[in-house]
Amino acid sequence: MAIGMPKLQQLPPVPGFKTAATACGIKKNGLTDLLMVSMTPNTTVAGLFTLNRVVASPVTLCKQRLPRGIAQALIVNSGNANVANGPQGMETAKTITQTVAKALDIPEDTVFCASTGVIGETLPVAKPLAAIPKLTATLTDNGWLDAAKAIMTTDTCPKASTRTIELDGKIVTITGIAKGAGMIHPNMATMLAFIFTDAAITSPALQTILSEAVETSFNSVSVDGDTSTNDTLLAFASGLAQNSLIEDPHSAVAAPFIAAIKDLCQELAQWLIRDGEGVTKFVTINVVGAKTQNEAKQVAMSVAKSPLVKTALAGCDPNWGRILCAIGYAGVEFEVDEIDIFLGDVQIVKGGVRDPNYKEEQGQKVMNAEEITIAIDLKMGSAKRTVWSCDLTHEYININADYRT
Amino acid sequence: MAIGMPKLQQLPPVPGFKTAATACGIKKNGLTDLLMVSMTPNTTVAGLFTLNRVVASPVTLCKQRLPRGIAQALIVNSGNANVANGPQGMETAKTITQTVAKALDIPEDTVFCASTGVIGETLPVAKPLAAIPKLTATLTDNGWLDAAKAIMTTDTCPKASTRTIELDGKIVTITGIAKGAGMIHPNMATMLAFIFTDAAITSPALQTILSEAVETSFNSVSVDGDTSTNDTLLAFASGLAQNSLIEDPHSAVAAPFIAAIKDLCQELAQWLIRDGEGVTKFVTINVVGAKTQNEAKQVAMSVAKSPLVKTALAGCDPNWGRILCAIGYAGVEFEVDEIDIFLGDVQIVKGGVRDPNYKEEQGQKVMNAEEITIAIDLKMGSAKRTVWSCDLTHEYININADYRT
Repeated sequence: MAIGMPKLQQLPPVPGFKTAATACGIKKNGLTDLLMVSMTPNTTVAGLFTLNRVVASPVTLCKQRLPRGIAQALIVNSGNANVANGPQGMETAKTITQTVAKALDIPEDTVFCASTGVIGETLPVAKPLAAIPKLTATLTDNGWLDAAKAIMTTDTCPKASTRTIELDGKIVTITGIAKGAGMIHPNMATMLAFIFTDAAITSPALQTILSEAVETSFNSVSVDGDTSTNDTLLAFASGLAQNSLIEDPHSAVAAPFIAAIKDLCQELAQWLIRDGEGVTKFVTINVVGAKTQNEAKQVAMSVAKSPLVKTALAGCDPNWGRILCAIGYAGVEFEVDEIDIFLGDVQIVKGGVRDPNYKEEQGQKVMNAEEITIAIDLKMGSAKRTVWSCDLTHEYININADYRT
Repeated sequence: MAIGMPKLQQLPPVPGFKTAATACGIKKNGLTDLLMVSMTPNTTVAGLFTLNRVVASPVTLCKQRLPRGIAQALIVNSGNANVANGPQGMETAKTITQTVAKALDIPEDTVFCASTGVIGETLPVAKPLAAIPKLTATLTDNGWLDAAKAIMTTDTCPKASTRTIELDGKIVTITGIAKGAGMIHPNMATMLAFIFTDAAITSPALQTILSEAVETSFNSVSVDGDTSTNDTLLAFASGLAQNSLIEDPHSAVAAPFIAAIKDLCQELAQWLIRDGEGVTKFVTINVVGAKTQNEAKQVAMSVAKSPLVKTALAGCDPNWGRILCAIGYAGVEFEVDEIDIFLGDVQIVKGGVRDPNYKEEQGQKVMNAEEITIAIDLKMGSAKRTVWSCDLTHEYININADYRT
């Protein structure tokens, strides 16, 4: 079902990181559900987490450990989100990271963790604990594809990508894996993404770069507007590339690194949409002519989230009235009789009314494609933003409602 | 499809108002699509309109005429929303009200109007104009059911209701008609509601009472979170009941009137949900224990609008993790390990975790019903609010996406 996803090839090693994946039995279908990543000492770490007030225990634990800025391992399970389990949930997350720490002989507070899957069921902690020795024994340089598979829930394909750049004469690799809108039991869709690089960069600099990159990537996509309890983005930097340490996130020397992180995050974020639940359309929404970037994003997200726009997309209906309506309730000031709307390169609304030259067949042709661009010019200023979205289909409802039948 | 709607009976006359309805040909299926209401001189009027920045021309015209506080006629067409037609849209709305004014021999600025239906298509103004003489000739005291039918779009049943109260010894009648989530071409769902009473009340007092009533009725329901371009609520008071004029909206003498208006608005608003597009569940969401009423509403609306909660409802899935998650992203502060959630009278979450006594069969039984109550206790204060919502079904997508097939 995923739209325009490249077939994944094996990814190159990232110096300083080894991975192992296994099926420990949390998922009932026998698929891999546990990922361990071991890291060289002094690996720096940065992270961003869900803004939901209900958070998974692993999110709470990562937030506690992040300020030290040092990581030596990551453990991720799929199949159970470890949310809303009360004190027991935190106990479980701690026990798992303790066991990883012992197995790898590293300090417990350098172990990061994440979970994704059903909410509110007890995570059967004995299963991952029993699998940790096997993971420790099978750590490899060449396991990125298996790593990406082990964190999937209802994703239809694994998501992993890599960038290679030069930083003051040294080759630097940046590899990311991600999982998107999916469910197990089924339950909440959860976004997890992990980035691994051998760049030498301080934890605060990495945090700044990651925070900036997320705004135009993971924070610019919407499948259904539901913010999960487990959303986690972690970036790890081993420093083994031996470039001169990046301390200032806005220095000229960091520029290629920033560009590569942004590009990688954007690709992974778009893949979450391309493989969104029930998706049949990949939609790019460009808003230009806004007073501020925030207002541009607000308008774009209003169109991205509108159920009436999303169902029109599912039905290949060039229903520009719904787009105009969703712009209207975005909470942003504009003059209706100035606004232009384009579907692909076809102008459909000119000065707030149907373009007199527009013909329905033109809009229909754009809407029939799998990839659709909606462009909106607010004519209020020069700020712009792009977000990515998808349609709302019968299959989305099948996945989320009808699983018992 | 509508859930729990009473079969409508003919409604009693409201002194001071006459109605006429006809099929003028805007709707292609030959159904009635034009409603005229004539009113006794000195009828007072109050109104509330959509907050969308893109508004229909009739909304703009009503807003211009409302400050005078006097109405003598209402003209409503269904089948075309008269939105995004530029200057021509306003010209059309004015021409229609001018023609009504001439036919009834009343001042043009006492004629109010509303439209509902497809956005962005030109309203074929000749059709309503040609029908106005016939409407004028057929005005009747006993046409409320026909009036409710003439404003329908994809509503599956007409919506009209009445209340009779005593105000200082005089019998007062209050009758309302409404239309909900529906489309014609199809296009945007639009909420229209009109209230007619023979109470004697000033326009400012009526405006205050209407504004307060709307908060716990029309502003407390959500089908799909899309705010239309045409939403209109108008209330008209003829004064023929001859109660002593209500000038202070908070006076003791006004209390029964306020209660009746609130009750009527709430019933009509609930009917919009009961007959919402594709609805199979009518859902009442009670939030208690909030710090403020606004926070209670914010939490309730977050649950009401969540696609994952709505699809779980469609699938009869007692998926409390999704409810908890939607509470979490409502933007309201609370302690997760305090929260209680009930489905019907079954406690499902206790102190933020699954109630140890809860059994899945109990939740399943509640979810299998057509009418479901979700109760949430935030344990943060004593404020509470109720909103009404529905599920998100295949039929919703059929109505909004698949109309070409």
